[in-house]
Amino acid sequence: MVATEVVYDGTNFYGYQGQRNVRTIQGEYEDALKKIFKQQVISFGAGRTDTGVHAQGQIIAFKVPNDNIKIENIKDALNAILPDDIYVKKVWEVDSSFSPRFQAKKRIYHYFIYTKKDPDIFLRNRAWWFPYDLDVEKMRKASKYFEGEQDFSSFKTGTDERNPIRNIHRIRVIRLSNKLILIRVEGHSFLRRMVRNIVGSLVKVGTNTWEPEKIQEILSAKDRSKAPASAPAEGLYFYSVLF
Amino acid sequence: MVATEVVYDGTNFYGYQGQRNVRTIQGEYEDALKKIFKQQVISFGAGRTDTGVHAQGQIIAFKVPNDNIKIENIKDALNAILPDDIYVKKVWEVDSSFSPRFQAKKRIYHYFIYTKKDPDIFLRNRAWWFPYDLDVEKMRKASKYFEGEQDFSSFKTGTDERNPIRNIHRIRVIRLSNKLILIRVEGHSFLRRMVRNIVGSLVKVGTNTWEPEKIQEILSAKDRSKAPASAPAEGLYFYSVLF
Repeated sequence: MVATEVVYDGTNFYGYQGQRNVRTIQGEYEDALKKIFKQQVISFGAGRTDTGVHAQGQIIAFKVPNDNIKIENIKDALNAILPDDIYVKKVWEVDSSFSPRFQAKKRIYHYFIYTKKDPDIFLRNRAWWFPYDLDVEKMRKASKYFEGEQDFSSFKTGTDERNPIRNIHRIRVIRLSNKLILIRVEGHSFLRRMVRNIVGSLVKVGTNTWEPEKIQEILSAKDRSKAPASAPAEGLYFYSVLF
Repeated sequence: MVATEVVYDGTNFYGYQGQRNVRTIQGEYEDALKKIFKQQVISFGAGRTDTGVHAQGQIIAFKVPNDNIKIENIKDALNAILPDDIYVKKVWEVDSSFSPRFQAKKRIYHYFIYTKKDPDIFLRNRAWWFPYDLDVEKMRKASKYFEGEQDFSSFKTGTDERNPIRNIHRIRVIRLSNKLILIRVEGHSFLRRMVRNIVGSLVKVGTNTWEPEKIQEILSAKDRSKAPASAPAEGLYFYSVLF
């Protein structure tokens, strides 16, 4: 078994998960594996990302099916085949029982918001352009309500029918400059759209539309019809996974 | 007459200058003007940029043909029509004799080089990925030979038949971080490919392929067959124009 750390620009993908007839990360990755090993190879990712969402540290593992290529050459071989919006940073051997999805202890997401009145076209598809002042102190206060193990039914999409109890370890709201804000969300695992719904709520607090306490109210409702508009995909990065 | 300051991501354009059947900055800009004023409007840029070259401060002027729209609303109207890889930052009235091309006193170009061994896919089409160490001190020494008024015949393309005497006011080689280098070139006007040829030469010095003195030798030859390989378009930004 081999694990790989993978970066991708999600702009031109229909998300992570392989699907017929559309361009996905998993699809491109398994196509590259097939070229290297001359046979179908199934890959396992640490988390599914939606259309337009990026990754700086996705973990993808696969069982090496033959000795067509030495493990120390897999990184270069994959990068030679993969398109220029996916890049493999690292390849290493792992135990044959390794599962990026089930053994992940912590997943970290980064979300970037660009708040200047004029857009930066070089940041389009890289950050959410939201041209209004945000009260970062209030957003920090609101973020505390999300921390800990609780029911996130109000912060998911209807298509996600899994157990809504999730554990968010920590949220940090960081002002990187007078125009760029980073929201860092650390947790064990996430429901679909959960991070983008959390960011959407924090922005409602940041613009003073909501008081921080409103977050507690929505959480307690356990009702996805209360979920705020989610923040757009282009600001979200699957940043890293800890095992 | 109105002047506008325009930003664009050159990746998906066949350069600045309008041409039939291909996507150019001037073409998109004049299409937007036509929609606003309901008639053909000719525009005048401060400098032509090649395919793939970006701008952070291109100046484009045009004569307002009618009063379909107030001048204070032109910025919003243009940005509503232009595609998302062109953005108008500023619009202001100028004298009817204003020419961005002929009245420019100084043009500033920025060139970014990313030197880490692994590429940053989020910087593709934004900087030149050149994964080798560069000796910035040597590059600075070499850059001095380019400064001042002299014959740049060795640093242009054959298609540019204009007077090869040009005046470079200053070149700065700035290490922004351990992986990112900025080369800032200030001059009155430039021959075609001149900045990219200068950067290509500085990189040859930075890798110790050439000694700094080699630049003087190539300049003195006044022979474009001596021109080094030009640096790729994606690292170059037309940064600003002073009048």
